Amino acid sequence: MTHLPDQGPQPGVHDLGYARLDTDRMERTGDAEVVYGAGKTPSQVVELLRTLHATHPGHAVLATRLSVEAQDAVHAALPDAVVDPVGRTAVLGQPPALHGTVAVVAAGTSDAPVAAEAATTARVFGAGVEMITDVGVAGLHRILGVRERLDAADCLIVVAGMEGALPSVVGGLVGVPLVAVPTSVGYGASFGGLAALLGMLNSCAPGVSVVNIDNGFGAGVFAARVARQSVPRTTKEA
Amino acid sequence: MTHLPDQGPQPGVHDLGYARLDTDRMERTGDAEVVYGAGKTPSQVVELLRTLHATHPGHAVLATRLSVEAQDAVHAALPDAVVDPVGRTAVLGQPPALHGTVAVVAAGTSDAPVAAEAATTARVFGAGVEMITDVGVAGLHRILGVRERLDAADCLIVVAGMEGALPSVVGGLVGVPLVAVPTSVGYGASFGGLAALLGMLNSCAPGVSVVNIDNGFGAGVFAARVARQSVPRTTKEA
Amino acid sequence: MTHLPDQGPQPGVHDLGYARLDTDRMERTGDAEVVYGAGKTPSQVVELLRTLHATHPGHAVLATRLSVEAQDAVHAALPDAVVDPVGRTAVLGQPPALHGTVAVVAAGTSDAPVAAEAATTARVFGAGVEMITDVGVAGLHRILGVRERLDAADCLIVVAGMEGALPSVVGGLVGVPLVAVPTSVGYGASFGGLAALLGMLNSCAPGVSVVNIDNGFGAGVFAARVARQSVPRTTKEA
Amino acid sequence: MTHLPDQGPQPGVHDLGYARLDTDRMERTGDAEVVYGAGKTPSQVVELLRTLHATHPGHAVLATRLSVEAQDAVHAALPDAVVDPVGRTAVLGQPPALHGTVAVVAAGTSDAPVAAEAATTARVFGAGVEMITDVGVAGLHRILGVRERLDAADCLIVVAGMEGALPSVVGGLVGVPLVAVPTSVGYGASFGGLAALLGMLNSCAPGVSVVNIDNGFGAGVFAARVARQSVPRTTKEA
Amino acid sequence: MTHLPDQGPQPGVHDLGYARLDTDRMERTGDAEVVYGAGKTPSQVVELLRTLHATHPGHAVLATRLSVEAQDAVHAALPDAVVDPVGRTAVLGQPPALHGTVAVVAAGTSDAPVAAEAATTARVFGAGVEMITDVGVAGLHRILGVRERLDAADCLIVVAGMEGALPSVVGGLVGVPLVAVPTSVGYGASFGGLAALLGMLNSCAPGVSVVNIDNGFGAGVFAARVARQSVPRTTKEA
Amino acid sequence: MTHLPDQGPQPGVHDLGYARLDTDRMERTGDAEVVYGAGKTPSQVVELLRTLHATHPGHAVLATRLSVEAQDAVHAALPDAVVDPVGRTAVLGQPPALHGTVAVVAAGTSDAPVAAEAATTARVFGAGVEMITDVGVAGLHRILGVRERLDAADCLIVVAGMEGALPSVVGGLVGVPLVAVPTSVGYGASFGGLAALLGMLNSCAPGVSVVNIDNGFGAGVFAARVARQSVPRTTKEA
Amino acid sequence: MTHLPDQGPQPGVHDLGYARLDTDRMERTGDAEVVYGAGKTPSQVVELLRTLHATHPGHAVLATRLSVEAQDAVHAALPDAVVDPVGRTAVLGQPPALHGTVAVVAAGTSDAPVAAEAATTARVFGAGVEMITDVGVAGLHRILGVRERLDAADCLIVVAGMEGALPSVVGGLVGVPLVAVPTSVGYGASFGGLAALLGMLNSCAPGVSVVNIDNGFGAGVFAARVARQSVPRTTKEA
Amino acid sequence: MTHLPDQGPQPGVHDLGYARLDTDRMERTGDAEVVYGAGKTPSQVVELLRTLHATHPGHAVLATRLSVEAQDAVHAALPDAVVDPVGRTAVLGQPPALHGTVAVVAAGTSDAPVAAEAATTARVFGAGVEMITDVGVAGLHRILGVRERLDAADCLIVVAGMEGALPSVVGGLVGVPLVAVPTSVGYGASFGGLAALLGMLNSCAPGVSVVNIDNGFGAGVFAARVARQSVPRTTKEA
Repeated sequence: MTHLPDQGPQPGVHDLGYARLDTDRMERTGDAEVVYGAGKTPSQVVELLRTLHATHPGHAVLATRLSVEAQDAVHAALPDAVVDPVGRTAVLGQPPALHGTVAVVAAGTSDAPVAAEAATTARVFGAGVEMITDVGVAGLHRILGVRERLDAADCLIVVAGMEGALPSVVGGLVGVPLVAVPTSVGYGASFGGLAALLGMLNSCAPGVSVVNIDNGFGAGVFAARVARQSVPRTTKEA
Repeated sequence: MTHLPDQGPQPGVHDLGYARLDTDRMERTGDAEVVYGAGKTPSQVVELLRTLHATHPGHAVLATRLSVEAQDAVHAALPDAVVDPVGRTAVLGQPPALHGTVAVVAAGTSDAPVAAEAATTARVFGAGVEMITDVGVAGLHRILGVRERLDAADCLIVVAGMEGALPSVVGGLVGVPLVAVPTSVGYGASFGGLAALLGMLNSCAPGVSVVNIDNGFGAGVFAARVARQSVPRTTKEA
Repeated sequence: MTHLPDQGPQPGVHDLGYARLDTDRMERTGDAEVVYGAGKTPSQVVELLRTLHATHPGHAVLATRLSVEAQDAVHAALPDAVVDPVGRTAVLGQPPALHGTVAVVAAGTSDAPVAAEAATTARVFGAGVEMITDVGVAGLHRILGVRERLDAADCLIVVAGMEGALPSVVGGLVGVPLVAVPTSVGYGASFGGLAALLGMLNSCAPGVSVVNIDNGFGAGVFAARVARQSVPRTTKEA
Repeated sequence: MTHLPDQGPQPGVHDLGYARLDTDRMERTGDAEVVYGAGKTPSQVVELLRTLHATHPGHAVLATRLSVEAQDAVHAALPDAVVDPVGRTAVLGQPPALHGTVAVVAAGTSDAPVAAEAATTARVFGAGVEMITDVGVAGLHRILGVRERLDAADCLIVVAGMEGALPSVVGGLVGVPLVAVPTSVGYGASFGGLAALLGMLNSCAPGVSVVNIDNGFGAGVFAARVARQSVPRTTKEA
Repeated sequence: MTHLPDQGPQPGVHDLGYARLDTDRMERTGDAEVVYGAGKTPSQVVELLRTLHATHPGHAVLATRLSVEAQDAVHAALPDAVVDPVGRTAVLGQPPALHGTVAVVAAGTSDAPVAAEAATTARVFGAGVEMITDVGVAGLHRILGVRERLDAADCLIVVAGMEGALPSVVGGLVGVPLVAVPTSVGYGASFGGLAALLGMLNSCAPGVSVVNIDNGFGAGVFAARVARQSVPRTTKEA
Repeated sequence: MTHLPDQGPQPGVHDLGYARLDTDRMERTGDAEVVYGAGKTPSQVVELLRTLHATHPGHAVLATRLSVEAQDAVHAALPDAVVDPVGRTAVLGQPPALHGTVAVVAAGTSDAPVAAEAATTARVFGAGVEMITDVGVAGLHRILGVRERLDAADCLIVVAGMEGALPSVVGGLVGVPLVAVPTSVGYGASFGGLAALLGMLNSCAPGVSVVNIDNGFGAGVFAARVARQSVPRTTKEA
Repeated sequence: MTHLPDQGPQPGVHDLGYARLDTDRMERTGDAEVVYGAGKTPSQVVELLRTLHATHPGHAVLATRLSVEAQDAVHAALPDAVVDPVGRTAVLGQPPALHGTVAVVAAGTSDAPVAAEAATTARVFGAGVEMITDVGVAGLHRILGVRERLDAADCLIVVAGMEGALPSVVGGLVGVPLVAVPTSVGYGASFGGLAALLGMLNSCAPGVSVVNIDNGFGAGVFAARVARQSVPRTTKEA
Repeated sequence: MTHLPDQGPQPGVHDLGYARLDTDRMERTGDAEVVYGAGKTPSQVVELLRTLHATHPGHAVLATRLSVEAQDAVHAALPDAVVDPVGRTAVLGQPPALHGTVAVVAAGTSDAPVAAEAATTARVFGAGVEMITDVGVAGLHRILGVRERLDAADCLIVVAGMEGALPSVVGGLVGVPLVAVPTSVGYGASFGGLAALLGMLNSCAPGVSVVNIDNGFGAGVFAARVARQSVPRTTKEA
């Protein structure tokens, strides 16, 4: 009783009691609200996904950071949803047409969940995705061997933990806009991803921007927006 | 044997062995001591609530940060107590007459427990409460739509996690005293609420004060004291 | 040429080229904008004070954090301004009628500049001020000797550096709303006021709220708003 | 003698003894190397600018973080260079044709140097720039009044100090890619820009990426790359 | 095989394979080595206590930070040992004659385990102990009421969490050597006891020294050494 | 589907789907890649060890940071592997001929796992190992008693938690290259090994280098490389 | 005018306008108040010393942290004062009779100012002092060579910067109460003395307590109180 | 008078009053003590260098971190000394025969002083030095172009500021022992070199060890010890 919201209906808001969806967001920003699953019950996740889908029937809607229980609940209640256990995401509804290409580059195998979240998000937000994994700087031939694919993308997402050096190396190889994602992979003086975060913020390669530790979602939104508004490659290269 | 308190009875102190209640506090400050439930057993919580109630029979007394077990124990042993599972509080005794209005404003759904603790505390300490929830700055129409209700309050409690930007926005909209509560909602570089805490301490809006991370209780006490001593609105607006 | 603002005139904004005054603020919040002197040239401070005064001729307007050069420039150009070299403030215009009382309590002599800034701010924002200085906890008789004066105030501002213990002690003595101001007084592990800030945020006395390190201004705004809306003491005590 | 570089000539490197210019960078990334002026003598800055200009005669070349002495030396030795004392930059050579638009949005007057560095950089890297200044969140009508101009840009650079809340507010208003730049403006618990940095990394608005504190240059490079590859607006809006 | 110690017998060392007891310590410092139970198995704790007891049959020996399992194992295997479940200690052997008095002062009920560890340690190291508990600064009458008992001690141990203000208050009341122990009691910006630690290090009362967070053992050793070498009170007061 | 790696076969890479082994590393650096077990499933560890062994049949290959489950799986599936439960390592294949001597020196019993990981690593990387354990500085006779053995080594690994003083003491006794390993042993203000790390980085003894907290593996690689390239002692001492 | 203290005369307080001396402190704690010179003008230092001397004519009074200007002013105005330019102290009045011995042990030459402040303070507070300097752990024979002098003291003050290892070594050699003083000597990851502070707080030697960085004064007060109440050595050793 | 060292002559110590040289160090460690110039007067530096030279007439002795004034004083008083203004060092006496090779690799031009200090130190400690400068990872062709020279060294010193990525890249290219030196080059979130330090500690390349920020001296000592004891290359490569 203590904490019932008192406010009445507001335009642009869908009130579910425990949450108030921002249904106006697509109008303002071109993209629907997303279900952030951390701290929500499986049934809340299901209801929120279903409601978002009903509000935006022509768009795919996304839920992130889903527990195994929430993934199972979505699977059972919304059989049309595509659930990814690696990236811990669920997608419901018609995938958008894809414009441009985001290359998701990951340094190590432990960075896979963050890379997968970034990739799924970029697709839901309307960009094509190319995955390039396990190309950490300790074996430089791996990243040098994919230089042309890096150069062909409209936006790069570079995911790395530990010292987070990969974005600096990639940023020196090509001039494509680059969003770096530090991960919490590491131990001791990595301080939960702080070392990688600081490394990326201090990159000596120009044109590197950074998102929060483990924030594959944020990088995916950003990169998709860049990629989908880019001049198509055939035009660009002419 | 090692840790038995040696001291004899002291005026203004009720000694329970494992705790010594400050029964003089109401005399000095106008408000009774409160049971801080963290680290106490369910039976200790019950005994402390009962003892405080016996000491101050005419006042509602409060327990905070109750585990589920402690909530159940209070429910069973003190059927007159009102237990709130969201805010994790219990209240026992006659609610006070309410003077003035505290508006509790929360940025996101995950901030609900802290907002609920603040609201219950403010009521026990004698102020009326209005809840305004899920009005984070990413959808600004939500907070702009309640501007008049903010302006009508005697004191504002603004609860937010992540970057903690809401108090700055609210503080620029109205001139009501504003207590900001950072929450530990977030991940990565939120560092357990540190990002929100620093953001609120550096607010560019004048007149914002801050309490500890997740400290809905402290904000509730402060705001209630401000609200209950305020000139009633009809007078104030004249 | 690079950085000239492109935007045209906006309602509620007075554009000076290097700054755009928020002339609508008094309408929204009841208080005028304030000149924050840090990083501004003496002549900018003078022009900003003069412009604010012209916009709000019936109110006192305030400038804070003035260098010695800026204080001299204000003195010379605006002889009606009242300059305080301790608090590094200047006030121009008719002081407001004062409502309610703010008690500014300072722990040590080195806290005097922050206490003075808080006091001047509270007066410009419409509250009466009582100063209680050099009452640090190492000599407890000093603060105990003024308990009644603390209790008679409508809001307390408690200023302390080093370990910042004074707000906890004062908060246990009286039930008046209390805003704590940590100062950068100290050395070594005070880390520029961090020790005092953390101490105040973790106060064991309920009802203590906190502002940024050395932020006498913010505490003054907050406390004045509380004091000026409080029921007059004769009423309150009845 | 101790520290003379031993290595011989390398392709893609122009060796000046105290520095080895990466003359291959334009080939790899499409943009020339830039002179980072911090810690260099005025005559080194002049020589480096002149050498870069000679290497890339058809492009404008840029120097950043110039001391007043270095600005004077550039002015005297390279009269064709355009020196900006606010942003502390110098530009030498033919400005590029501009493609797309970067909107540089600054919260306060003290953020002007960082905003100016970002704007100059974006222009040298080939994007048009629109400045929107002094629109901090404490006076929300200022940013709301320019919503359409924000929406019309291809990329946003949002510059703010203190609590750094502006990117979250802007990111909720429009869906344009947004690079946030925290500044060191503030005091006390801003810890040299750390509060703004953490706030921006934890933004509740999706699609916000962040660069280092005071790094207007990095944001300018990034945003120009996004803007210049974007589909022209008339196409985009159709 | 990998980690077997290779070294042969050394004088002053008793080698148990997984640990090498410093049997010479009593010769050098006057006190026996102590079993630090954290990270040791119950049977290791039992064996170490038994071995220390055999080495120093005329002295009480001490084990600290015992898990519940280790406490049970000691109880079963060494029935003469005195186990304290609050302080998580075990003592085996003849208690020493006690010289001088250590007063252990604790701010709150949650500080009881650290206070108990300090008290037991001080006794094993040869000092008498007086406990004064739950005298936090929010109810100042409690500590003022025991001022004479504080003054009569030879050394004070003051235990407090949260803001850690109690040592400053006590250090201003009496001139007795004072060792402060910060505890990890608190939440949010207490950062696991850091706030209390910094507060105590910056105490404005002269003559306060500090040990590690939750280090009741270290304070007990230190204070016992001070107390047992002090001139007896009757002499001192004459 | 989301996260399948798209890239085709690359020279110098063995692609297992969830990981891409750097099979070229031995060519470049003289040492094979190592299986870092943290965050990998037991069956992944088994497959990776088996694949590395097949790639480098003439060399021992190493897996570190194995959970108990992974140790059991290796034991069952690869009976020739040598599993060390203290250091949490597994070694598969023919041990190399050993050149030179690494002395692994550990301060306390709780440092044993890190010391064991360092020792096993050094052996797999081709150096002989001598263990010297439980020689912390609180009982200085223990380290002084092994001075000659320290002096006879080609490289020292010194492992310590808490204040991490042992490397400074050892570094003052002998002129052998010394790699210090801070451990997370401690509590309170050790902050997970930060205190030991900072202590070692600030050592007053010249010639101390440091690796990450608990990084016995890194120290082992480094020290083995130093030892195996050293002139044999008989030569060196001549 | 803004900041004049309003309060009237209080017993136990001597009001100088800019400071209020705690003249009751000697009554409560046995020691007079001390002039902390940081942030005070030379003439304020002179007046405060003179006033303290007049209040306590039979005791030596102390001023610390004096600038060169303040030292000169004291020299000129109070020719009886003893000024120490190394420790930056001044002492005025009759030195007390000395009881017991404090040994001040310093690790390096750069620690001399802090050691001198500690020594002067201990003498003014009534203890004899023995100086033992430049005995850092990198040359262990130096501290081992003075072991007997350490053992003969009643209290030890151990001063060290950089990694701060000396207190752990000394604390393992003798059982005398030991107060450690971290200094800000160092660079880089010493973080202004933080490394030494953390090292000392985590000392593996029991019975080490710590004061603030560079706080020779605090250590001197503490150690003098311990030493002057100790049983004289001839008695103690019997 | 306060701070005069009381101790008499000790073997292995040369007492200069303000410093006590450890003349036994060469006996213990094979290398002489070094003059750390920070905080010493020019004449102290001269006297210390001269004394060390007299004690070890057959060896070169070294002074580091010399101010311009100290460099001038050494130049004037000790004309045989070799002063390096970049590395801020002075060397006096016969250079040793050089054994083995240390390659000093620096990322940027601003890292030159630290690289020079490392190079001079390595030479004084008996190793040959090869300088490889301005090979930061943003232009990867520069470091790839010197791969063979890296591989030919006996020990590598890799110096880098900002994100400190160079050691990870170099550590993946060759198997030579590598000491990384973070520098304070950078701004904002580099936090005085902390970002580079953390990056290097978390390097994904095995076998990287680290010294303090800007500690070229420490790296030089360590690397020289490794190089001079290494088997000569012709032997090694056979």
